[in-house]
Amino acid sequence: MTAAINLAAKFAQIHEHWSPRVVAELNDYQFKLAKLQGEFVWHQHDETDEAFLVIDGELSIELDGADTVHLRPGELYVVPKGVSHRPVAEQECQVLLIEPSGVTNTGAAGGELTAANNVWI
Amino acid sequence: MTAAINLAAKFAQIHEHWSPRVVAELNDYQFKLAKLQGEFVWHQHDETDEAFLVIDGELSIELDGADTVHLRPGELYVVPKGVSHRPVAEQECQVLLIEPSGVTNTGAAGGELTAANNVWI
Repeated sequence: MTAAINLAAKFAQIHEHWSPRVVAELNDYQFKLAKLQGEFVWHQHDETDEAFLVIDGELSIELDGADTVHLRPGELYVVPKGVSHRPVAEQECQVLLIEPSGVTNTGAAGGELTAANNVWI
Repeated sequence: MTAAINLAAKFAQIHEHWSPRVVAELNDYQFKLAKLQGEFVWHQHDETDEAFLVIDGELSIELDGADTVHLRPGELYVVPKGVSHRPVAEQECQVLLIEPSGVTNTGAAGGELTAANNVWI
């Protein structure tokens, strides 16, 4: 039986940007926490939607073919599968990601910001 | 393309307890908001885990065969599939539920607190 998960306590254990950490599983989906700052790479996930819930700070999600989405704490956005997007945060923000297990943060784009998968805290 | 979803603005549209409202979809999963107060019915979901993230207030989740889980804002718990549970909130609380589309709030237990599925706000 899993225990209650305090997101703030988990965020306190994260000291890198753009490195999602798994905190819980829901069937074959995972809840991941990430601290984001700066500009990520344009990428897409061809097999899945991807949910972003901002917990602290502000996040912009630039989208190919649509207006940029601006998220503040308590705001949720689901990037549709196959849509190229780029998260950008001027200041550090804290985000809860929900997506199927095994999704790589940079999708098919790869590059130096690609993080290891399935790293739990 | 869906838009950013402000959870507080959505909660302001909910005037009933124990009636989950869908605010977003992630593949074949749904994000549902619910205001809870009082004691729910004991029930289980044999086909799926069920995630509870408390946004405001406090929620206890009584579990068959395990200690009750107490959740405050910013705390997450995933009830494993097949585990009988009963949410209890002394005061009104606001909860984000994540689970596959089509899950009924009372599981197989039924009863008067059974809510309609797939009601969006």
